[in-house]
Amino acid sequence: MTPTFEDLVASLSLLPGVGQRTAQRMAMYLLQRNRLAMQVLADALKAADGSIGLCSRCRTFSEQELCAWCSDANRDRSQLCIVETPADQLAIEQHGGYRGQYFVLHGYLSPLDRIGPEQLELSQVEALCRSGADQNPDTDQATSGRSADSVKEVILATNTTVEGEATAYYVAEMLKPYNIQITRIASGVPVGGEIEYLDGNTLQLALDSRRPFRL
Amino acid sequence: MTPTFEDLVASLSLLPGVGQRTAQRMAMYLLQRNRLAMQVLADALKAADGSIGLCSRCRTFSEQELCAWCSDANRDRSQLCIVETPADQLAIEQHGGYRGQYFVLHGYLSPLDRIGPEQLELSQVEALCRSGADQNPDTDQATSGRSADSVKEVILATNTTVEGEATAYYVAEMLKPYNIQITRIASGVPVGGEIEYLDGNTLQLALDSRRPFRL
Repeated sequence: MTPTFEDLVASLSLLPGVGQRTAQRMAMYLLQRNRLAMQVLADALKAADGSIGLCSRCRTFSEQELCAWCSDANRDRSQLCIVETPADQLAIEQHGGYRGQYFVLHGYLSPLDRIGPEQLELSQVEALCRSGADQNPDTDQATSGRSADSVKEVILATNTTVEGEATAYYVAEMLKPYNIQITRIASGVPVGGEIEYLDGNTLQLALDSRRPFRL
Repeated sequence: MTPTFEDLVASLSLLPGVGQRTAQRMAMYLLQRNRLAMQVLADALKAADGSIGLCSRCRTFSEQELCAWCSDANRDRSQLCIVETPADQLAIEQHGGYRGQYFVLHGYLSPLDRIGPEQLELSQVEALCRSGADQNPDTDQATSGRSADSVKEVILATNTTVEGEATAYYVAEMLKPYNIQITRIASGVPVGGEIEYLDGNTLQLALDSRRPFRL
């Protein structure tokens, strides 16, 4: 069409899941029917890139030094939920009744891609878990001696993929010395799922993790 | 997440075929993995909105007064292909061996939506077809008397929908006085199509429009 049009199509295909044809359709639509959306979207992209950084405490997306969750005094600071991505955090936040804090790894351990504990800022997780103990140097490391703000439970909510499991395992090992309760989100039959069609691994895990039936 | 994040998601869902969840996934991807794309896309949107207008002659997207097709001296000016959208024009240009000129209606006649001949700038089509005749006032309206630049054939390439057919009919009626050959793109069995599964209307049309078999 025109060079600027081709530029627009190429730029739109940078979006995930958008190929050449979809990008062309989007460009046509915008130019023909929704010029205003072009300005709105351009401004939103610039604004987001300019103002959204990472929360210094939990590393989720934030426009301030501390994110909404970390600065909310009503959130339970004794629970720390570790997730791989802000999207995972959002999913838990939107659907679960979780009221604790988060820590976002922005990935998983992957030695082949040179993503180790430093890249995931795992020292920051350790610092969060240590802080409670440090605040009460006189007491033993028993959880009873910790302040209300200190982390008492770390919930490992990484994906149940090989990498997610490995990352969860590493974090659990790392936090062993701090005498904190470490839990893992449950695996098993999805709600509404049919046992007949479930993959073998999940079925095995669901059987192994069976629990007393509550009447 | 954050207000700016929500803005970005809302702006991305303005794109056709992008819902709330896809927009959220796009925003996450951009923020986490491709900050550069945010700037590139924002700039491309602003540039396209700022510089892409309509060609004064054929009304397709153009950055200059005349588009690449209208200013190309090698294109056959005796053929004028009338399409509904720039996307249709692009499809014909990319796949057909067409070397003539275009006119883009940017829609179809739709009285209920108050889209009449004025909105489609049909007077401009008439002007293009008239110009050849006007240049030779001494001769009859016979095509033989026209200059090389005058339109000798108008190809109606609107969609084969009810609206597209109605629009094609209207244009054909309008151009009747100008003694120009008026053609319609063929309808029939798509290449690779199976007759068994073809809809009745298309099959009927394909039979009615049968042509001598060339050996």
